This record gives sequence, structure tokens and C-alpha cells, in this order.
Amino acid sequence: MNIPEKTIERLSEYRRTLLSCHEKGITHIFSHVLAAIHGITAVQVRRDLMLIGFSSDTKKGYDVKVLIDFISSILDSEEPVNVAVIGMGHLGQAVTKYFNGKGLKLRITAAFDIDPDKVGHEVDGVPCYHMDHFEEIVEEHDIHIVVLSSPSKAAPGLVIPIINAGIKGVLNFTSRPLNFPPGIVVENYDITTLFEKVSYLVKQNEESGA
Amino acid sequence: MNIPEKTIERLSEYRRTLLSCHEKGITHIFSHVLAAIHGITAVQVRRDLMLIGFSSDTKKGYDVKVLIDFISSILDSEEPVNVAVIGMGHLGQAVTKYFNGKGLKLRITAAFDIDPDKVGHEVDGVPCYHMDHFEEIVEEHDIHIVVLSSPSKAAPGLVIPIINAGIKGVLNFTSRPLNFPPGIVVENYDITTLFEKVSYLVKQNEESGA
Repeated sequence: MNIPEKTIERLSEYRRTLLSCHEKGITHIFSHVLAAIHGITAVQVRRDLMLIGFSSDTKKGYDVKVLIDFISSILDSEEPVNVAVIGMGHLGQAVTKYFNGKGLKLRITAAFDIDPDKVGHEVDGVPCYHMDHFEEIVEEHDIHIVVLSSPSKAAPGLVIPIINAGIKGVLNFTSRPLNFPPGIVVENYDITTLFEKVSYLVKQNEESGA
Repeated sequence: MNIPEKTIERLSEYRRTLLSCHEKGITHIFSHVLAAIHGITAVQVRRDLMLIGFSSDTKKGYDVKVLIDFISSILDSEEPVNVAVIGMGHLGQAVTKYFNGKGLKLRITAAFDIDPDKVGHEVDGVPCYHMDHFEEIVEEHDIHIVVLSSPSKAAPGLVIPIINAGIKGVLNFTSRPLNFPPGIVVENYDITTLFEKVSYLVKQNEESGA
């Protein structure tokens, strides 16, 4: 199944909304309600769900629990996926604290840094190791995905250790775009880009007199 | 000019690479080199630059300084844009520290929280105010854009204050998608979604035996 990346992102977002509905005891939701929460059209929601083969819209709308399980069957691996954070500055710590106890299929099980003040300590129960031990800890913890929240300057030097350790996916928050060989997924999410995009859209809005 | 959002993101990324080249004394760069750094095709780079009307490719490649200035004329406002951060937990502090001294047209000039341990203090020279004073500080600092890095639960309650204060753009890092009336740009960047996307792509890679 070849699902566009934007649809994958929306499925993840729908699921989070559905989980929140489920917690509140809401059993059914109409496509136009789900659409309104996400600021998109009902057509878009129905198209996304059609794409993954979900089509049990009833008079009461989608069954929340059934749809959660269906989306999970698409997005999630069967086993929990172990994640490591490289760079335990504020961003690395924010990501680690954000994840703990969220009940996701992804879990941060190790952190890495080179700062002696951080190595040997824990953040929210996640131990921080020295980068010198990266390969062995990755193997020991069966880590598949890494988050890069190191200083940007350090990012290019991490490519070889990441490849050598057999990492399969990289979420790169530094401002250095990184390339990896086929077989390793990399998503570059530079925060500066997000800011500059919002700023440009605001400028355009103002120029068009919106 | 109607530029696709993905092109805007790439222009921001190209510029950052070009700035780094410029610092190193590199005066010219070929489209295929710029493309390789960003893991895309030279055709894509040329298409993006054609879209903004830049076409001064020479035998030596693009003039780095000229291209930086051209992209800046598209992306940047003439005046620096003031940004505020709402929620000074780890993520808010990470964003603030990340921005200081980057020499961007965007600058974080105020932060907000409700925690008495944070209000009245500074992070990297940025003062933290109580949310009770949001409207007046926004006006005083001429703030146009806010970053939401508050706990997700608090996000829906921030919509009205943001509208009332006349904010024009919102970069929402919480896991609650937020809707605003036309005239206010909102970009929802839930970190969970980024993780779930990478995880899905890794899973798909493994299934296809890549």
C-alpha cells in the first residue's frame, strides 16, 4: 500500500483526536466533525480513510474505537519501537519528557550526549550514555530510530555512527540536512524552517489584505 | 505570487545552506550540489528557483550571495518580526535558546507562562511574563507571531487570547490541532506525528525488504 506522506501525518493526527474522544466516552464521530477539528474538509477525511480501506461510515458516523484500531493497524509496528535521543540539551529533554507515559508504540529508551554533566544521569527514567558507547547501547536496547537534537555543528559527524549502528530511521531536528543511504529513513525538521514558513504566510496574508 | 508551501520550506533550507557556504568563502554553487546536500534532484532545485523568478545560473553555478539575497527578498519581511513563546517548559526554552543570536529576521522578544517560578525571570535575555498580561505585552512588543509550547491541555484556552491580541501567525507544537479565523495563519506541528511518520516509513521500508 502506497500512502502519501501527508495522509500518514493526518492519520496520526486523526488517531490522537479519536483517542481523546474515546477517553471522553464519545463512541461515534461524523467525518465533518473530525474534519472541523483538524481544519480540513470532510471530503479530505473520507478520502484519507478510503485510501487505507476504511469504509464503515454509518448513520451515526465512524465508530471511534474501530477507527482507532484500524488506523493503528496501518501506522504501528506490532512490537513497540525503541527510540534514542542524541543530544540532551533542552530540546532533547523536552522530547524525552513529552514522550514518557503517552502510551505510544514508540518509546525512548536511551539518550546520548558527550557532556559529563549529562552522561550517567537520567531524564524521566531514561539513562544518558556517552556517544562513545553508541553502537553497543543501540544493540543492547534494540533501538531502531534516533532523534537528533544535538548542536547542528555536531550533526554531520553523527551520520557514520548512525549507519554503523544499524539505525533504520532518523528524525533530524538540527539545521543541517543529512543524507543517508537507502534503507535508512530520514526526516529533516528544522525548526527555523517552520518559523520562516509561518512568517512568510503571515507576510503574504498581510499583503493580500486578509 | 502563489508559491507552494513545500517550496517555501525548501527555499528556507536552501538559504541556510547558502549562508553556511557564504561563511566558508564559497562564492558559487551548482544546482546539483545544492540538490545533493538536500537529498533531492537538481531538477527540483531549478524548478523551485524558477518559480520565484530566479534564473541567473552561470557556468560557475549560482552566485551564492545573489541567491541568498533573492531568497531573502521572497521570504523575509522588511522589518524584523517579533515572536513570543507561550509555555516556557523545556520545549519553549529550547526554542528560545535556539533562536537567540541566529541573525534571523525573526526574533523572540517575550515569553509567557503561568508558573510563578518562571514569570519574572529571563531565558537568554527574553523576559517571561504572566499570561494575564498577554494582550498588553503583545501590543507593547509589537508581537506578530506566537509559538505554542504549553501543555496540550492548555492549548484550546489560548485561542481567544491569541485572537484578541491581534496575533497574525501561530506555530503550534502542542498535540491539539487549533483552528483560527481567516487572517490568522496556523501551522500545527505535533512532534508525535513526526515520530509516527518516521516509524511508519521505517516499517514500510522493512516490509519491502529495503
